[in-house]
Amino acid sequence: MSHNTHGHLFRVTTWGESHGPAIGCVVDGCPPGIPLSEADIQPFLDRRRPGQSRFTTQRQEADLVRILSGVFEGLTTGTPIALLIENTDQRSKDYAEIAERFRPGHADLTYHLKYGVRDHRGGGRSSARETAMRVAAGAIARKVLGSGVIIRGALVAMGGDWVSREAWDWAETDRNPFFCPDAAAAARWEARLAAARKAGSSLGAVIEVVAEGVPPGLGAPIYGKLDADLAAAFMGINAVKGVEIGEGFAAAGLSGEENADEMRMDPDGRVRFLSNRAGGILGGISTGQPIVARFAVKPTSSILSPRRSVDRHGQETEVVTKGRHDPCVGIRAVPVGEAMMALVLADHLLRHRAQCPDAPAIARLPRN
Amino acid sequence: MSHNTHGHLFRVTTWGESHGPAIGCVVDGCPPGIPLSEADIQPFLDRRRPGQSRFTTQRQEADLVRILSGVFEGLTTGTPIALLIENTDQRSKDYAEIAERFRPGHADLTYHLKYGVRDHRGGGRSSARETAMRVAAGAIARKVLGSGVIIRGALVAMGGDWVSREAWDWAETDRNPFFCPDAAAAARWEARLAAARKAGSSLGAVIEVVAEGVPPGLGAPIYGKLDADLAAAFMGINAVKGVEIGEGFAAAGLSGEENADEMRMDPDGRVRFLSNRAGGILGGISTGQPIVARFAVKPTSSILSPRRSVDRHGQETEVVTKGRHDPCVGIRAVPVGEAMMALVLADHLLRHRAQCPDAPAIARLPRN
Amino acid sequence: MSHNTHGHLFRVTTWGESHGPAIGCVVDGCPPGIPLSEADIQPFLDRRRPGQSRFTTQRQEADLVRILSGVFEGLTTGTPIALLIENTDQRSKDYAEIAERFRPGHADLTYHLKYGVRDHRGGGRSSARETAMRVAAGAIARKVLGSGVIIRGALVAMGGDWVSREAWDWAETDRNPFFCPDAAAAARWEARLAAARKAGSSLGAVIEVVAEGVPPGLGAPIYGKLDADLAAAFMGINAVKGVEIGEGFAAAGLSGEENADEMRMDPDGRVRFLSNRAGGILGGISTGQPIVARFAVKPTSSILSPRRSVDRHGQETEVVTKGRHDPCVGIRAVPVGEAMMALVLADHLLRHRAQCPDAPAIARLPRN
Amino acid sequence: MSHNTHGHLFRVTTWGESHGPAIGCVVDGCPPGIPLSEADIQPFLDRRRPGQSRFTTQRQEADLVRILSGVFEGLTTGTPIALLIENTDQRSKDYAEIAERFRPGHADLTYHLKYGVRDHRGGGRSSARETAMRVAAGAIARKVLGSGVIIRGALVAMGGDWVSREAWDWAETDRNPFFCPDAAAAARWEARLAAARKAGSSLGAVIEVVAEGVPPGLGAPIYGKLDADLAAAFMGINAVKGVEIGEGFAAAGLSGEENADEMRMDPDGRVRFLSNRAGGILGGISTGQPIVARFAVKPTSSILSPRRSVDRHGQETEVVTKGRHDPCVGIRAVPVGEAMMALVLADHLLRHRAQCPDAPAIARLPRN
Repeated sequence: MSHNTHGHLFRVTTWGESHGPAIGCVVDGCPPGIPLSEADIQPFLDRRRPGQSRFTTQRQEADLVRILSGVFEGLTTGTPIALLIENTDQRSKDYAEIAERFRPGHADLTYHLKYGVRDHRGGGRSSARETAMRVAAGAIARKVLGSGVIIRGALVAMGGDWVSREAWDWAETDRNPFFCPDAAAAARWEARLAAARKAGSSLGAVIEVVAEGVPPGLGAPIYGKLDADLAAAFMGINAVKGVEIGEGFAAAGLSGEENADEMRMDPDGRVRFLSNRAGGILGGISTGQPIVARFAVKPTSSILSPRRSVDRHGQETEVVTKGRHDPCVGIRAVPVGEAMMALVLADHLLRHRAQCPDAPAIARLPRN
Repeated sequence: MSHNTHGHLFRVTTWGESHGPAIGCVVDGCPPGIPLSEADIQPFLDRRRPGQSRFTTQRQEADLVRILSGVFEGLTTGTPIALLIENTDQRSKDYAEIAERFRPGHADLTYHLKYGVRDHRGGGRSSARETAMRVAAGAIARKVLGSGVIIRGALVAMGGDWVSREAWDWAETDRNPFFCPDAAAAARWEARLAAARKAGSSLGAVIEVVAEGVPPGLGAPIYGKLDADLAAAFMGINAVKGVEIGEGFAAAGLSGEENADEMRMDPDGRVRFLSNRAGGILGGISTGQPIVARFAVKPTSSILSPRRSVDRHGQETEVVTKGRHDPCVGIRAVPVGEAMMALVLADHLLRHRAQCPDAPAIARLPRN
Repeated sequence: MSHNTHGHLFRVTTWGESHGPAIGCVVDGCPPGIPLSEADIQPFLDRRRPGQSRFTTQRQEADLVRILSGVFEGLTTGTPIALLIENTDQRSKDYAEIAERFRPGHADLTYHLKYGVRDHRGGGRSSARETAMRVAAGAIARKVLGSGVIIRGALVAMGGDWVSREAWDWAETDRNPFFCPDAAAAARWEARLAAARKAGSSLGAVIEVVAEGVPPGLGAPIYGKLDADLAAAFMGINAVKGVEIGEGFAAAGLSGEENADEMRMDPDGRVRFLSNRAGGILGGISTGQPIVARFAVKPTSSILSPRRSVDRHGQETEVVTKGRHDPCVGIRAVPVGEAMMALVLADHLLRHRAQCPDAPAIARLPRN
Repeated sequence: MSHNTHGHLFRVTTWGESHGPAIGCVVDGCPPGIPLSEADIQPFLDRRRPGQSRFTTQRQEADLVRILSGVFEGLTTGTPIALLIENTDQRSKDYAEIAERFRPGHADLTYHLKYGVRDHRGGGRSSARETAMRVAAGAIARKVLGSGVIIRGALVAMGGDWVSREAWDWAETDRNPFFCPDAAAAARWEARLAAARKAGSSLGAVIEVVAEGVPPGLGAPIYGKLDADLAAAFMGINAVKGVEIGEGFAAAGLSGEENADEMRMDPDGRVRFLSNRAGGILGGISTGQPIVARFAVKPTSSILSPRRSVDRHGQETEVVTKGRHDPCVGIRAVPVGEAMMALVLADHLLRHRAQCPDAPAIARLPRN
């Protein structure tokens, strides 16, 4: 994967800056004959859309997606699907101050050093606005995977405060503004994030994404392992600093006996795992168990407290980021994480059936 | 990156199974005119070589590497460099028992489900033996990067017991069998690992890899970000379950003020960061600071305690892994991690100079 | 290169159907800091635009291109450049007849067999309309190559009637509707094509594209040779059935003595070739001589004479293609051929400087 | 495709120089479960092997291939298949003269200008010796395609003297040293090539490769068209200067009526074409008809007549190529052309079934 394209066979190329006329993407390699319209995509964009609560940026974007190609009479044709969203609420003047100065913890300096020129308005290409197209493309990837694959995400920690596994309720993620599966945690976070926002500060978060119904066999060892591609997909989301699969970093503290997922046979010939510390992936290949991944999002560096910095002329200065920002960018990273899971799985599904068309769709071992 | 090839411009394709006649790789896209001989590669292989202490597998492999192409009169020619290591100490009979049974926590089952056939001997292609070629290729990548880039790795936790940052001494990593930078921790680990080995158990570990002297500007947003490619590279190492950059998962518990790395100017016009929580990468592009990454290695599932499992005929069974194994595979993952860092950086160095030939080699801001 | 993306480092992804709302492309990997506006692209589109003479389709398209991203304050930023052209003159009802029937010699049948669904209107994705985006992207590629590289194309044969090499005048290509460098041939073709058009028939053509000022060293042996990539680029243009470099097929009739281009030294240390039968490429790498390529375009299969065919229900039928078509599609293939040359060279320029940053920019041999 | 790797899903990476210790390749992405041994590959290598008649180089190479990985108990495992051939008959001293001088028409100069260093012995990496590995990999590609796909090649012109289509007999290609399908032409060529060899000269040739039994639907428009990938594959063979599909350059001289292949229905519901001017490909996608391609090979530039040249120190000189060479390199290009056809088709077969798993295997149109 390179530059602005994700995937090998199910390929997504995104373009556009935060404050340009529009953002868009091209989805290439999609199988033909799949029913698709804007109505399949818009609900996912609506989940990610800013301005829905006081805990996300107040920028108001309708984020209405248009399909410009690749669909004919309601079906995908196998040719590239172009999606486009117009940018409507850009207040570029908010960013005049950071045209010359580099925000600490932001991509401003590195874009300047790499490219020499940069569109500073709203972060330009480095803005999280780009992730809208990931979500849109992810909606198409879900259709490629089919209704048997369920991908869901949740915020599992904010500012170091974790949800309780015992209290986990997926339905709860639709009832609070945090995609939080634990009602009690959501209540605590609400108070905490309100305080952070008032103080002009920001908080980090951890997101968990789970994919159920994934067939075994997805993943292309050695350098296209499913977990490796997921790690890249999640780490490439704005502000992400860590990724783990299954037991993750905690596995490093277990013994071999504790960590190995033992197996039994179900009466119907399916392999049944007695645990899922592996997070559904062994040797870079899916086992048929749910795929479980987590990623850590740092607190946004766009804050109101003045920070010491430098400007493009090599002068020392201070920076305060006004603009309109999310006090916890991790919240809107939930639908983005789901989308990246979908994109990686759809790509690997196509790669898998290219090489192994006879592989079983479920983890069954024929008795012979 | 796909299947058995790593990288876009500096490309490494590995091949070979644990108990086949040989393993090898092809390094393609290497710049011409670089002095190279086996003597440049062998020392790195020797660091990874098994059988060097009682804490790694007792398999005895000389791991002597031969260069078969791409070097003429001591210089790289820009054509593919083929490397080959013969396998000499294979005791395949050790593995007869696992020909039919799937070791819990191992890739046995997933290779069987994906491919239908598998070379079970010593794990076949899924064996950590493949990582010898990563280390060999990594030695070439280091030469591409030049002597100004220093890449070093260390074991920072074993079985949940962490080194002390205050006690960190890189020189110490050469003095104990664990690549441990903290003499006191190494002593504790020695006792602990001896006990685990005696009990037929295994321990997990965390490895930290640091690259100093990396120029700013490496990384290709949005889907070829430097941290995303590093995440894939580390997650793709055998038994790895988590990856983090800089502050990593801990960043999710910080406030925006704490997490942002403030900047000042050095008298010579270089940007000086007052901290490095970002781990040397912002927006997917290197800052010029040291790149700091960590990855978690699970305890090997090849253990002597019997575990419940199934066989290829769908029968329930138990598995005890005899063979010769590392009680802590994380130890030998240290040189592998260094190699993956080198491979990713070399590839991105070439990609960067293709697109941005005029970008500065250090993070200097000209006063004008 | 795969599906709808061309190139490795300078990458162009096109999308859109002949009768959809718009067509577009994303140019990724473009170096930053290059002055670029619509005015740099439009003139090349105008050369390819339909409806300019009675010898091209009468479809009237303004083909006004818009840059939607990747350019800030007049300079490329190194991020993806999205281009978009709205389709304005679609008369889809012209195509009702071919919705069900497959035109002989057209892509109708193969798209149907491959994808099951197809946008039949105007050829959908297989329409030559897609080449407008190649021309647009090619204009950017020219800027990457710089003003020292001159790429020009000409029609050198129509319906088997060839231009005279002695009469060749590049300036003449702007004075007739055929991009013909030989005024006498243009006059002959005018009569001939008018007759073919009147008869509802069509003619084939041969196009020659020449690139001067190309530095030596471009090309990535063994499977990324410059001539191989050019061959793919030209063969991939609609209706092309043959490609040759330099002497081409005629070289197969020469002796080794005749075919080898001898060399002398210029006083300034440059290698001077005494002939250019190689067409500027040896071993897949540019020599510094002009790169000379030709490709053959078949007569379009969209003709008014009824042809025997079949329909999607497996019934035999006849097809007459009404719509609006070019009696010689080879004419408008001239700017497309130039664009493909520019795209291939720009991509290889970036690839070359990634691997060989110290290679000389001209074919000079230092005396030492 | 890039550098030394061919293909996207069925990927072949070759390495090795003419006079190094060995040459080899890695075949990645091969489907699992295919019976494979050296005996499947060797016969194809034997057809290409030098020293079999006085019309090919007198270098004696057994060209015995070894499989080093990817096959277990006689079946492919889906992991990389490494192949290796040792070089045994290198007389490097023959090449001392060309260490410093550039042979006209050869890759010597361009490798020197691109890379600065080159292995001059026997042409090093640019030697046609590399094509042995294409033939070896092609044998595996044939197994992927299955026995229903028949790929055959023939020499159809030598030194401008063409075979008679009426006299075509595939069986004849095994009875003369030229892979010539026309016994009378073979007799003429024998006399002619003997004379050329005696005179220290060389002759060019044209090769035709035909693939029968190819399913419809192979090819990935727009930039991965089947004919475009074939054009690259053939143009990338050493000394090739032209490629054409079906009617090729002659199509440019036909009218639209003549060129379009009309269609009827067979009683079994299959589409029957009344001609095959398209060469089995429309819109970049296979039709199900035989795929027909031709490529032109220039006369080798390694000849005994002295030619004017320059040396690496910028001095004018003359070059006579002694060594051992083929007076008509086109002969041994026949099995190489077949191999490239197989590699391209196998890769596209995998790509096609990834995106269009439900596409029909033959060109049948269901009546409904």
